[in-house]
Amino acid sequence: MSVRAGIVVTGTEVLSGIIRDANGPWLAERLRGLGVSLAHVMVVGDRPDDVRASLDFLAGARMDLIITTGGLGPTADDLTADVVAGFAGRSMAVDPALEERIWQIVSRMRGRWRDASEEGMRAGTRKQALVPGGAVVLEPVGTAPGLVVSGDGVPPVVVLPGPPGELQPMWADAVETPPVRSLLARVDALEQRIVRMIGIPESELARTLRGLDGLERLEITTCLRRGELEVATVFPASAAADYDAFEAALLERHGTTVFSRDGSTIDEIVAALLLGPPVRTIAVAESCTGGLMAGRLTDRAGSSAYVLGGAVVYSNEAKTDLAGVPPELIARVGAVSPEVALALADGAAERFSAAVGVGITGIAGPGGGTPEKPVGMVCVCVAAGESRLERTLQLPGDRAMIRDRTTTAVMHLLRRLLS
Amino acid sequence: MSVRAGIVVTGTEVLSGIIRDANGPWLAERLRGLGVSLAHVMVVGDRPDDVRASLDFLAGARMDLIITTGGLGPTADDLTADVVAGFAGRSMAVDPALEERIWQIVSRMRGRWRDASEEGMRAGTRKQALVPGGAVVLEPVGTAPGLVVSGDGVPPVVVLPGPPGELQPMWADAVETPPVRSLLARVDALEQRIVRMIGIPESELARTLRGLDGLERLEITTCLRRGELEVATVFPASAAADYDAFEAALLERHGTTVFSRDGSTIDEIVAALLLGPPVRTIAVAESCTGGLMAGRLTDRAGSSAYVLGGAVVYSNEAKTDLAGVPPELIARVGAVSPEVALALADGAAERFSAAVGVGITGIAGPGGGTPEKPVGMVCVCVAAGESRLERTLQLPGDRAMIRDRTTTAVMHLLRRLLS
Repeated sequence: MSVRAGIVVTGTEVLSGIIRDANGPWLAERLRGLGVSLAHVMVVGDRPDDVRASLDFLAGARMDLIITTGGLGPTADDLTADVVAGFAGRSMAVDPALEERIWQIVSRMRGRWRDASEEGMRAGTRKQALVPGGAVVLEPVGTAPGLVVSGDGVPPVVVLPGPPGELQPMWADAVETPPVRSLLARVDALEQRIVRMIGIPESELARTLRGLDGLERLEITTCLRRGELEVATVFPASAAADYDAFEAALLERHGTTVFSRDGSTIDEIVAALLLGPPVRTIAVAESCTGGLMAGRLTDRAGSSAYVLGGAVVYSNEAKTDLAGVPPELIARVGAVSPEVALALADGAAERFSAAVGVGITGIAGPGGGTPEKPVGMVCVCVAAGESRLERTLQLPGDRAMIRDRTTTAVMHLLRRLLS
Repeated sequence: MSVRAGIVVTGTEVLSGIIRDANGPWLAERLRGLGVSLAHVMVVGDRPDDVRASLDFLAGARMDLIITTGGLGPTADDLTADVVAGFAGRSMAVDPALEERIWQIVSRMRGRWRDASEEGMRAGTRKQALVPGGAVVLEPVGTAPGLVVSGDGVPPVVVLPGPPGELQPMWADAVETPPVRSLLARVDALEQRIVRMIGIPESELARTLRGLDGLERLEITTCLRRGELEVATVFPASAAADYDAFEAALLERHGTTVFSRDGSTIDEIVAALLLGPPVRTIAVAESCTGGLMAGRLTDRAGSSAYVLGGAVVYSNEAKTDLAGVPPELIARVGAVSPEVALALADGAAERFSAAVGVGITGIAGPGGGTPEKPVGMVCVCVAAGESRLERTLQLPGDRAMIRDRTTTAVMHLLRRLLS
């Protein structure tokens, strides 16, 4: 059978857009892996009435499981445990053993702060040890305990802290608690497959989907992501043959645009190509991306095996000094040009003695554009031995989007160069 | 009077965590600027029943305004306009003039795709020109029109497309439509102030807050953000004196930890210090942050006025070759050491002829840690002329958090060095 879940993300700072919620997406992926269908994510501020209204809505919408994140801190505006207790018809009480365990943790942390008092920390500890009666306590990772709260006539509520570093390990404990285990025992296995494409409009894929039969048991979602088109399909294990036929049809019509069929990302594909064996080392000389290309390549654990380094060459002097671009070339064709991108790629490879070089030069804006070289024009080049792939991009969007899409375009050029 | 708003973010790809919602936070900030109180953000998949349930919940929770994002694309899973029409009791009809305007846009875009057909694009255009009767149409920025839909007994609904590049300019049009204008005319002015602090635990601030009087009319929210503590306060204009007293008390007790009282971020403060006059140029030599420090410094438009460049020196050879770190120093004290951080800072300044140099070397993990130099140990140094500030950090969290927090720590060192 299908198990539906809803998430309540609490926190005025998330609601007001000051910080971005990382927990909803992370939990969504975990739930999908468990075969639980996520129906609603609700973000609310630290107002008890609004938190309670969200819980009531999810119960009314017949969720089988509710997860809350945030609002477990030591301050008075952290009130999730209290609201959940009311929702489940439980009263709050201090758990003295828990209070002592939290105090042990807090005591160890005191040295980290310039400005801390025992009184404030004792009060915060007591507040965090106040839990709804009958709740299963999830041991603190930071200082806040998590909770699994059950009540009559309402779905079980998993109450998790807001910091992702605390929430994520605690989730592993939560799925092992009796209320969550008994729920998961009812779940039908669902499979998920992801196909990634580049260079095709969403409307064209929609046309293909309209023309295909046998998609009834597949839940297909298409979305644009950092310039790529992603086709995510969820289906019951018994519909695997339907999915295979769908994927075959997709490949037949749009095979040249498909770069991943197993869910792997372009970053993973490029990392695997560089890692070999044999390992191919890489170095970057980048201007308008200002370090983000090297930053993206080094995002991955273990990337030091193939990333030798990079040069952020914002000024013309740096392009010459660090990446060996001849000043007369810049004077003749301009810093933003295919020729300079190529010289940067070659210069990066040579300078770092790397097998692969990347060169990027462009205009990220908002200033600096001209009619001939408008904002969004970016010249990129990847080089390995005698091979060169060069592209002049004309990217839409603002400065951040232009910088980000440039790194995606380079990743795809690297894939072509190295495959 | 107070005007409350709710946002419904539609899209299975957002709900499932595959892409992050940028629109909720962006709209939250716009609403705050208009004095509208945002109460709920609800994320739902592309299932009509779930979208409708969200709209009904917001109407039942007495929102004065509802905003939807996403679900206006050309594919069959884009169904927001249709669901909103049902919610407002309107029927759907093709707007032929709108269809023609969309077709003009779509025709111009055809050249961008390798793989596109007229039939698919015609069908998509017709679908996007289908609008609820009586709705105010917001002209497309991409290909999707926005809508402002009014109905009897329900709050007005502003229907916006999902891509931020389309949503943001369209929001400016939406606030000028009669239904939204008449709502905004009822809003009391609210003020918002933000104080930012570093090096103080949230519990200590909570203790201060508990001890203060006169906070009744201030809505104070505290949150941790990239290692900083942010205190955001919203209040009616008539409570300005209360706020001033609160801020004075905060400064008296925790003045050394406050680095911003006007909402400016550490990035803005450092940018202003570098921009001068006189301009102080900066260059970076970074290892474990792999380009993210230079990337953060160049995030800002106009940063080319002071960022000369950077070197990503992952390998020891690159540390020596690009930043002039003596190989015997690395052999003696190790690549991750205060001495090498200092040599990197000096080397960056010298190499790029910059007034300010930044050096970063550390262990971002998950591998590479030892008992003496564990994962999370990062040595950073900033240098200008004869001045040096050096710090050995021991950062918690995963690879991404260690890399990010390192850049925050360097920003604060730069502020101290340059102030």
